[in-house]
Parts: sequence; structure tokens; C-alpha cells
Amino acid sequence: MIVGVKILPREEVLDSQGRAVENTLQQHNYTINGCRVGKYIQLNVEASTEDEALKKAKEITEFVLINPLVETFQLEIV
Amino acid sequence: MIVGVKILPREEVLDSQGRAVENTLQQHNYTINGCRVGKYIQLNVEASTEDEALKKAKEITEFVLINPLVETFQLEIV
Repeated sequence: MIVGVKILPREEVLDSQGRAVENTLQQHNYTINGCRVGKYIQLNVEASTEDEALKKAKEITEFVLINPLVETFQLEIV
Repeated sequence: MIVGVKILPREEVLDSQGRAVENTLQQHNYTINGCRVGKYIQLNVEASTEDEALKKAKEITEFVLINPLVETFQLEIV
């Protein structure tokens, strides 16, 4: 089962990539109200139910994929 | 309106970050069938309908966020 992990920098953390995208867009006359840049990871885990897949993915994400001090994440079944 | 952009490397492209995650997990006795690492971006665009928001986000994504030779993307309303 494939689980998508959406990782974003926390609100209070300086998101330099997001600022860079905002500046680039502004220079090309696109107007956006904000932009945050994070990571997207798809994990293909062995599981018979969605709950089991999400549980495994959460464990892996917290173990190796994110830094909880500066990042938050959301899981989704793909 | 906030639009999420999920970007992944194309299947045929070597995903070195994905391989690194797989190897790390294997060394710690987690078994996964695969892992792909990409980017997740949230764009806060000015729009009155979801269709308009998705249209603007698609334009911005193709203009500045992805390299279509090696990456694919999916949009979602957050």
C-alpha cells in the first residue's frame, strides 16, 4: 500500500525556499499570498489495512524522514 | 485558497534520495517495498473558485516549480 507523506516547515521557522519562490514569482508579475516549500515522500509499505499502513508510515516518518523541531507532516493513502 | 503541489521524480529517473531512505530503513530492520522522495509545496493563490485556484497553481508550477523532463506533479486543494 502506498502512503504519501507531506512534510512542511513549521510556521515559525524561516522557510528560505518559500521566500525564494515568492520573490521569483513577484519578479515575473505573478501575485501569490504565500508559499511554503517542503518534501513529499511516497512509502510503499506492506500492510493489509489502511490503518496498518498509516501506522507503519508514521513510525518510519518519525524515525527517519522528519525533524520534529522544524517540520510537521501529514499522511495520506495514495 | 491554498493549493498543494506534490512533485515526484519520474519512474524512469534515478531517485537517489529514495534509495538512501530505503537503505537506511533496511539497516534498521524496517521492510518497505519502495520509496520515492520529491517536493511538497503549498501555494496560497488569490482565487474565487477551486478551478481558478488550480489553474493558477498549474501555471506557476509549470513555470517555476518543476522540471518536466525528470519530474511529475499533482495538485490538490488544501
